[in-house]
Formats: sequence, C-alpha cells, structure tokens
Amino acid sequence: MLNSNTLYAAIDLGSNSFHMLVVREVAGSIQILARIKRKVRLAGGLDKHNHLSHEAMQRGWQCLKLFSERLQDIPREQIRVVATATLRLANNAGEFLQTAEELLGCPIQVISGEEEARLIYQGVAHTTGGPDQRLVVDIGGGSTELVTGSGAQATQLYSLSMGCVTWLERFFNDRNLGAENFAAAEQAAREIVRPVAPQLRQQGWQICVGASGTVQALQEIMMAQGMDERITLSKLRQLKQRAIQCGRLEELEIEGLTLERALVFPSGLSILLAIFQELNIECMTLAGGALREGLVYGMLHMPIKQDIRSRTLYNLQRRYLLDTEQAERVSQLATHFSLQIANEWQLDTRCCELLHAACLIHEIGLSVDFKQAPQHAAYLIRNLDLPGFTPAQKTLLAALLQNQSNAIDLPLLSQQNAMPPRMAQRLCRILRLAIIFASRRRDDTLPAVCLRADDEELHVILPSGWLEQHPLRAEALEQESHWQSYVHWPLFLSEQH
Amino acid sequence: MLNSNTLYAAIDLGSNSFHMLVVREVAGSIQILARIKRKVRLAGGLDKHNHLSHEAMQRGWQCLKLFSERLQDIPREQIRVVATATLRLANNAGEFLQTAEELLGCPIQVISGEEEARLIYQGVAHTTGGPDQRLVVDIGGGSTELVTGSGAQATQLYSLSMGCVTWLERFFNDRNLGAENFAAAEQAAREIVRPVAPQLRQQGWQICVGASGTVQALQEIMMAQGMDERITLSKLRQLKQRAIQCGRLEELEIEGLTLERALVFPSGLSILLAIFQELNIECMTLAGGALREGLVYGMLHMPIKQDIRSRTLYNLQRRYLLDTEQAERVSQLATHFSLQIANEWQLDTRCCELLHAACLIHEIGLSVDFKQAPQHAAYLIRNLDLPGFTPAQKTLLAALLQNQSNAIDLPLLSQQNAMPPRMAQRLCRILRLAIIFASRRRDDTLPAVCLRADDEELHVILPSGWLEQHPLRAEALEQESHWQSYVHWPLFLSEQH
Repeated sequence: MLNSNTLYAAIDLGSNSFHMLVVREVAGSIQILARIKRKVRLAGGLDKHNHLSHEAMQRGWQCLKLFSERLQDIPREQIRVVATATLRLANNAGEFLQTAEELLGCPIQVISGEEEARLIYQGVAHTTGGPDQRLVVDIGGGSTELVTGSGAQATQLYSLSMGCVTWLERFFNDRNLGAENFAAAEQAAREIVRPVAPQLRQQGWQICVGASGTVQALQEIMMAQGMDERITLSKLRQLKQRAIQCGRLEELEIEGLTLERALVFPSGLSILLAIFQELNIECMTLAGGALREGLVYGMLHMPIKQDIRSRTLYNLQRRYLLDTEQAERVSQLATHFSLQIANEWQLDTRCCELLHAACLIHEIGLSVDFKQAPQHAAYLIRNLDLPGFTPAQKTLLAALLQNQSNAIDLPLLSQQNAMPPRMAQRLCRILRLAIIFASRRRDDTLPAVCLRADDEELHVILPSGWLEQHPLRAEALEQESHWQSYVHWPLFLSEQH
Repeated sequence: MLNSNTLYAAIDLGSNSFHMLVVREVAGSIQILARIKRKVRLAGGLDKHNHLSHEAMQRGWQCLKLFSERLQDIPREQIRVVATATLRLANNAGEFLQTAEELLGCPIQVISGEEEARLIYQGVAHTTGGPDQRLVVDIGGGSTELVTGSGAQATQLYSLSMGCVTWLERFFNDRNLGAENFAAAEQAAREIVRPVAPQLRQQGWQICVGASGTVQALQEIMMAQGMDERITLSKLRQLKQRAIQCGRLEELEIEGLTLERALVFPSGLSILLAIFQELNIECMTLAGGALREGLVYGMLHMPIKQDIRSRTLYNLQRRYLLDTEQAERVSQLATHFSLQIANEWQLDTRCCELLHAACLIHEIGLSVDFKQAPQHAAYLIRNLDLPGFTPAQKTLLAALLQNQSNAIDLPLLSQQNAMPPRMAQRLCRILRLAIIFASRRRDDTLPAVCLRADDEELHVILPSGWLEQHPLRAEALEQESHWQSYVHWPLFLSEQH
C-alpha cells in the first residue's frame, strides 16, 4: 500500500485566493487528500503604482504559515508553488516572496502569463474530454488566459491583463449593476481581447472549454435552472439582463448562484461576454481542471492519452476490479443493437459514446454489494471524479446505471441535461437488453438477436427455438418486457420461423 | 482483470427452497454475482411413507432447468450441488436425482446431516466475528443443525429431524396460533433436543450464533423495533405472546416481520424457544453465513484466520487502496487516547475493538471523492458485506465514519443498537481527535498529547508552545472544539506550563 512518497502538493498564490491541493497517486489516478483555500485578496492590496500593501502581505504570510505545516511532510521535489498576476505586477513582490519562501521552506516561482496559460492548458488537457482541438478560457482574479491547443500541445498562448477582481474594482466599484457599468466593463474587455482574436481564430478549435469560478458559477446556475450545460452567448445575455434587473451588487440573486461566487460574478460575466463576441464562440463547456491540475499532472509525469475518457474508464475498471471481458461483451452487444436501429432512433456518435461508457462500468456497483448493485453504481458515478466527463454526462451515466435492471425509474432519465429524455430512454433500453443477453459471461452463448424499432416500439427477434433452450434468459426477457411496459415502452419478443 | 475462471457456484436443494449462489473471487474477498432462489417446497411433496410426489419433483426440475443455463459457464470443479433433509428422507429420491443431474450436467451430493452441520459451521466460521468457541444453530425447513466448535474446527455435530416447514405442518396445520399449538410444538422440539444437550453443554461456548430464516426474521424484527441485536429467551417469549395475540397465522403481524418470512415464523420460533431452554442459551446473534457460504469458502480453500474481522478490514484496505500507514497511525493514537481515559469513560474491550476497526478504514470515503468523504465512507460501510461484523456493528461503524470530521450528526450515533449512544459518542470524540493529530501523516510529528476526562468534559493538554508552532492543526483543533460544543460535548485545549 501507499505512503508519503506518493504525496504531491500544488500551491497557487492567486490574486483573489491562495489554494493548496494535496494529492496521492493511486493506481494511475489522482486522489485528493486535502484542498485548502483562503481568500487572501492579494490584488486588493495593490495600489495604482503597483505597490503591494503590508496588510495584504500579512494576510498572505498568515495563510502560508498554515500551508507550511502540511507541506513539511511531502518530499520537496513533489511540491510546486507558483504565484500569478498580482505578484507578477507588484514592484515590491521580492519583499513578500522572501518571507513567504522562508515560511514555506521551499521556492516560489512567479510564473509568466504565458507559463500560467501553458499550465492551465495542461490541466484542461488532462481532465477534459471531447475533441482534440480546443480553445481554453480561464478568467482569473487578475488575468485572463486564452489558449488554443491540440491534444497535449498548446499552440497559441495569451495572458491578458484583466480579471474578475480587477474588473470588479474598475467597473463595479459603485456596486451598481446598471447597463452602463456592464457596457463599460464589456467594452474594455473587448478592446483587450481584440488584438489577439485573429491569431486565435485562425488557429481554430472544435470545442471551447472554460475554467475558473465564473464558468463554474454559470454551470451551477444552468444545472439549478434545469438548462443543458452548454454556455451560449444568448444565455450569457439573459443572465446579464437578470443581473441588471437586480440593480445592485448586494441585491444580486440568481437561482443557482452561491453567495461565495456572487461578488465577482458580474465582472466575470462581462469579460466572458467580451470573449464570446470577439472570438465568435458558439458554445462553451466547463473544464475538469486548470492551473493546479496542470501543476499536479506535470509533477506526476502522466502521459496524456488521446482520449481522457478512455483513461478514466480504464482506471475505474482497474480500481474496482471489474470483469473487463464482461464489460467489453456488453458493450459490443450494445453497439451491435444500436447499429441495427441507429436510423430509426437517431443514435448519433455522442449517444453511442456515452452508451459505450455506461457498458464499460455497468458492474461497478457489484464492488459494493450484489443487493442494489445498480443503486450503488449510480451512487459511485455521481460522486467519483471522472476526468473527461462533464457534470451532465456524469448524471446521465448514473441514471443509465441505476436503470440497468429491475424496475425503471423514469424521472431519473429526464433529470439530466446531457441529452433529451427520449434519447436517454432509448440508450437505457439498449443497455438493459445487452446486459440480459450477456448474462452468461461467455461470447459463444450470445444469440444472433435481431432488433427492429418502430418509433418507441421495440421488436426483439430471436433464432427459432432459442427461448425454449434458454429458460433463464427467457424468464429474464419475459420479466423485462413487463418492466418496460410499466413505463410504456412497448417491447415485443418473437422467434424467427 | 478477471474472467470466468474465477467464478464459483453453490447450489443447495433445501426442503423449502432451492438456492443458487454465483460468486467471483476478487482480491481475497467473495463478490456475489447472482443469487437465485425458488420456493420449490419439496418437503410439501413428501407423504407419510416418505414418498416424494411427482408434482414436487416437477417443481424441482423446473427450477433446475433455470439454474442449469447459468451453470454451464462455470468450470465443473468450481460448482458444488448438495441436497439436504427431504432428499435424504425420500425413498424415491433416486428418481428425482437422476433427472436432476441430467438437467444440471453435474453431480448432486445428498449430504448427511452431519456433513450439513459441518458445512454450516464452516460457513459461520468464515463470516462471523467474535470469540473463538461457538455454538451454531441452524433451523432449516426439514432439519435443525446444532454444532459446537473452536475456530475453524467443529467439535460436536448434530442434525436433528425437525425444521420450520415440518413443524408448521405438524403443529400449526390448522393455522391456529393458540398457546396450545405453541406448547405442543415447543414440547416436541425440546424432546428432540434433550438427548444431545448434555454433550453440547459439556463442550461449552463463548458465543452462540444462529443462521437460517428464523434468526434473520428475529434480527429484522429487533432492528425495526429499535432493540439491540442480541436474541434472548425473554425476547423470544415476548414474540410468542405477540403471535398468540394475533390468533391466526394469516393474521400474524409483527413490526419488522416480512410477509415472506411470516408463514414459517411461529414454527421456527417454537424450535428456537426449545433450543434456548434445553441448552440454557443466554443470548444469540445472527451468523454472517451458513451452508452455501460453507460450500463456497470450501471450494475457494480460503484459510480461516483467527480473526475474521481482521481479515475483512485488511481486505477493505487492500481493495480500496487505503493508506495503511496512516490508518495504523490513527489507530495507535486512538488507542493511546483511550487508555488515558478508559476508566472515566468505561471503555471496554468491545468498544476499543470497534474503535480500532473504524480507525483502520476511516479513509475509505476518499476512494470515492475528497468532497464529502465521510459521507461516502458511511455509505460504503452501510452497504458492503463485512464478514465478522453484525448489522448493528456495521451501523455503528458507519455512524462513526460519517462523524469523523466537520459537523456532528448526533442522531446518527443514537440510531444504532451496538452500544449505548453515550459510548458511541465517546468513541466518536476519540476518533476525531486522533484524525486531527495524525493529519500530517508522519509519526515524528505526533505530539505527546495528554487527555483527561471528567464526565463528558474532555481536556486535551498539549506540550508548551505546541499550538503556536503548529498553526494548521491549532486551527483545526480550535474548529473542532466549536463542532463539539455545538452538540454539547465540552472540549478544552490547553498547554502544559
């Protein structure tokens, strides 16, 4: 088993907060042991002449004293401490850093904006699924990073001097959420983004992901309001209108917006609106990690495989000692079924990918107990960190796994925003059938099943005499047609003549 | 990863039901993949001349056809099929068995009562914690086994010709739950137990465990009614009175008694009352397994270590890749704390054992996620099969783990029936302090903490200057004294002068 040699720490002295992340490497995955955050608000101590106040330094040192107690137990070479925008800017940063390094007992790197952008890209590449060509947007307290990249490699790196803390102080200092303040904040941000837009747009991207608190806040708002998880310009504009209606910062109230995130939400929103417009972004999803994850994965020297989701699923199979042959068998059968009715049921690549993922881990609940294994599977998937899967995708996977057998919980398949409920129901039906047919855990007992779909009516056509020869599965299929009929999914079994 | 070579099946053709258990060996533990049960009621087809009716045979064969489909995928040498009382008795058993073996494609052993008793003892020894010297009681449909043993070794084996199905037909055939029927059933059972009582009592035991449906039903009743989980003569008598009040079998209603178990409950209860009285049993707890578990563990050739609970905890640490050094560190610290206040807080061996168990697996929730790790730990412990721990002990462990840090959920510590709430609270306080002091995961940073208890008032006395030098833990202790004060547990921190 594992000891302190497998501990790693990443510390990030940001403009708004200081963060410490302590992790342990377990079977190819990262397990978080401690996550400590203190709102030091270093940027607040920077005056016009970029002089950092002594009070702000004191707040920072106080926080580092706490961190240092924990750091002492981690091998030096497994700690990385970086400082960003505010300490890049402060002309008396040296004074702060000298004492800070003494307190921590290890060196602090003040990283350039470009290095910060590179690390953020690494953190995203290690934790975010989907296509290879990305645009990454990270709105920090004092700077905003824009990066394009392909797979593990960043191609264009920009760190811009604007952040949700500095924009709060410049444009919402009067706590007024009027349209004028928003317009000024947005306009100023657009002017900063404009010069770098052509190069980024030329590079191009297939998906755009956002890190940082602003995008997290948006994700939480959309989840709370039952919207799908894609951030679009029109959603951002609606939220801006809603904020304007609230009138003042202390009156800001949006369903799903937490108190902790409210203060810098309008300023972050203005910056995001500017970026969307200058870069013509169609939609954005939340990244699985950013700067700190980039630091940690960098120290661990984990290679970025082409597909983060595959790595995640493989790690789960390993950690939970799943029967991988059976997982593969169910997945192949599900694919075989899907292909037969792909047209009628409009099963696109995205659907098939998520169905495949569900198949590969469908037995994870058995690791807890045979009784209620589907419920245990859903519990684990809801709560595990699954790099590469968005929160909505996790919720969908959990709903599919919980409904893999026995009575069907229909609302669960609607309470996700990864795809329309009807599509989730179709995936669920295919998964259930694949599990029943593969239940003997052998390839040579799989029948040549023929599937036909007519709207929601599903016909399962079996070889002649098969049901008589396979009484256990015949019983299971009989029962299955009852389960499906209870939720008004017509399922018909027949044999070829 | 694992494939079909790790599959095992145990089938038990009982007098009441046929059972099939399919398991997989995973990292030294048994994982259940399928559990199929059919109420064949073979005993019901046996006439006065011990002739088994053709209808009963048909019911049995029908069931075996289902089982056989699943069996075909498991290596022959990893299947064991046994038949018990009814097929021992039936003088035309051969006819049934010939067709049954053809259907299953593997041999069926009609085992002797002694062999049945021996297997039951093995199943108990592999799944039940507590002292070494045991009396095992298993009330089946057609026979009742009484076994004494020490560790892995059975010393006295008896299989008696009475069971909850045969006693139902002999004494409650009129469906009347009158005192006379109970008296007759109990009297007849006492006469059967009496001849073997002296040898069993001479052998002696430190604990008595019960397997089978009757004892499971009792466990469920006691849990539902909030009683502690020890079955005593006075509780059995109360339940008999309650059954008599109900009047008739179809009117039988006892909180916690499921419909499935109700039919043979009065007859099983009469037999158990007889056994308690003839053997002078003080109390009985539920076994973790019996015949089928004996068959499975026998095929797997798993050695019985002296302490089943240690094996369970060790397996959990392995399966969930826990940091065992840290677990040991927390446990040692907790022991050190307990010893200092054992007298004031009446911490006996049983308490200390359960606290030790909680320490060894307290980080299991991290395997799911850092966020809400204590909740995840409690979820896992509530739902995992933990051989050696009784249901009440599992509930207690889950309550301790959920309360290992942050806000304290006081009701949780009362909603368990393994020990008085006050004792559970005391263990919880010790666990929480041990976790805080060990948080740096190093032995050389553990302070010489001195604990004093004055009723519920707990004093933590630290070396002079320690708090100043360890700001992170000082902050955590400060916060901890708040958490404890919220639930009225006075906790005082001080330093030596």
